[in-house]
Amino acid sequence: MKENGIGPGQIIRRQQDGTFEYQRDDLTVEEPLEIRIGDKTVATTMRTPGNDDELAVGFLLSEAIIRSGDVIEKFSRPASARNRDNIIRVHLAAGVKVKLNSGQRFRTISSSCGLCGKESIDAIRQSFAPIRSISIRMEIATLLRLPAELRANQSEFARTGGIHAAGIFDFSGKALTVREDIGRHNAVDKVIGRSFLDRKLPLDRHVLIVSGRASFEIMQKALAAGIPIVASVSAPSTLAMEFARESNQTLIGFLRPPTFNIYSHVERVVLE
Amino acid sequence: MKENGIGPGQIIRRQQDGTFEYQRDDLTVEEPLEIRIGDKTVATTMRTPGNDDELAVGFLLSEAIIRSGDVIEKFSRPASARNRDNIIRVHLAAGVKVKLNSGQRFRTISSSCGLCGKESIDAIRQSFAPIRSISIRMEIATLLRLPAELRANQSEFARTGGIHAAGIFDFSGKALTVREDIGRHNAVDKVIGRSFLDRKLPLDRHVLIVSGRASFEIMQKALAAGIPIVASVSAPSTLAMEFARESNQTLIGFLRPPTFNIYSHVERVVLE
Repeated sequence: MKENGIGPGQIIRRQQDGTFEYQRDDLTVEEPLEIRIGDKTVATTMRTPGNDDELAVGFLLSEAIIRSGDVIEKFSRPASARNRDNIIRVHLAAGVKVKLNSGQRFRTISSSCGLCGKESIDAIRQSFAPIRSISIRMEIATLLRLPAELRANQSEFARTGGIHAAGIFDFSGKALTVREDIGRHNAVDKVIGRSFLDRKLPLDRHVLIVSGRASFEIMQKALAAGIPIVASVSAPSTLAMEFARESNQTLIGFLRPPTFNIYSHVERVVLE
Repeated sequence: MKENGIGPGQIIRRQQDGTFEYQRDDLTVEEPLEIRIGDKTVATTMRTPGNDDELAVGFLLSEAIIRSGDVIEKFSRPASARNRDNIIRVHLAAGVKVKLNSGQRFRTISSSCGLCGKESIDAIRQSFAPIRSISIRMEIATLLRLPAELRANQSEFARTGGIHAAGIFDFSGKALTVREDIGRHNAVDKVIGRSFLDRKLPLDRHVLIVSGRASFEIMQKALAAGIPIVASVSAPSTLAMEFARESNQTLIGFLRPPTFNIYSHVERVVLE
């Protein structure tokens, strides 16, 4: 080992046997993405680069700034900006009315943040209608398969390191989209953004599974995409549960086969 | 089991043997806390109720709105507000100059959010001086003991459920403060807020350990309290590593005894 510390791209790892070794730093990249509608900055979020178009659309959708029927003409990067890779411009088709009200603040959002910038708690309870009841129900066997399916669709690093995954599956357990990001909200924005771009909204016969906690904001994003079932391998928050009950969403937590918890709207799961 | 769904305070749990049972819902509570300086709202954060004074102070400190030397006269709840338990007023001593600039936005912060509301990425690189070098070094044996010490100071639910912990320990491994919250940033705000109230800043002979990821904002909060070593049981982000290198902070990640990684300023760890 060198005597004087850690070089660029390097880390020091203590091994099982107590010896030390220099290793390559392979941390998940976290960089800002500035989301613009045309020339207007809407938000800046800390994200793992990649699928920026999906992330932008998923974010705008779950903030109710655009609606599922809106048409996006194209995406672009500013021609001259210094950090052009960290800026994405969304160009809406002529006639699309953006719901950016004057109270909308420009803000920076942590990679782990979903509610940032809301001025009041009431503003959090966004303007999405509850899920309409449908007769589709999910089998337990399908539900139990989801965590393994999610992992199978993740990268090697994601399975071991500090990155979150979100996946959208149909009721037969088939993966529609799986995305990763250092922020769990971003991973969800990416999967619902992809679905928007593929004109698959509302996802009323699908389930969203997330590798992290199911917070309130995750439920809200799912609702924005019309998703009736959300499953988390970890804990939901109390607000997530309350929101799910109000929004007619089925919330599954601690999905660790063979066990899991159902927090709301059990009628969408075939228990017998 | 009842036929018609899940009652208030109830969840349904699938057991190991495949049978279902109603159980009591014991999810971590997540509620908004509005932080005011006097009558002026500074931020609203989603948090687990408890130790609100510490949370408020730790937040104001790491946002550089107050400084470690500032004197707080008292805390109060508004007399008449409907949700008075979710509002805390910080009363600064006469003569304390608040660094609330006009660009400061009122905002709501997710329980998992630390950077929320910053207008630009440059604003994120806050106004804290790097840690000054000190000759104190930490023994590996002490470092390896920290995760178990942190868990020993956590509640039962925290060890199993969806709640984060942060702890401040001295270089001999003795716990100064351990706090829990649904948001990992809040847990850190609480421990540094406690230290502020006990007039123990700067914590230049202490280590911060967090149960979650070490993101950029965690490093920033540690720096605000003058903490030279941050250890995480999980992954740091690239920005956290860069920030630590610039700020003269030692960053330890994946602290899973007997292994761990050192990402910056190895000179504070006794490797032999």
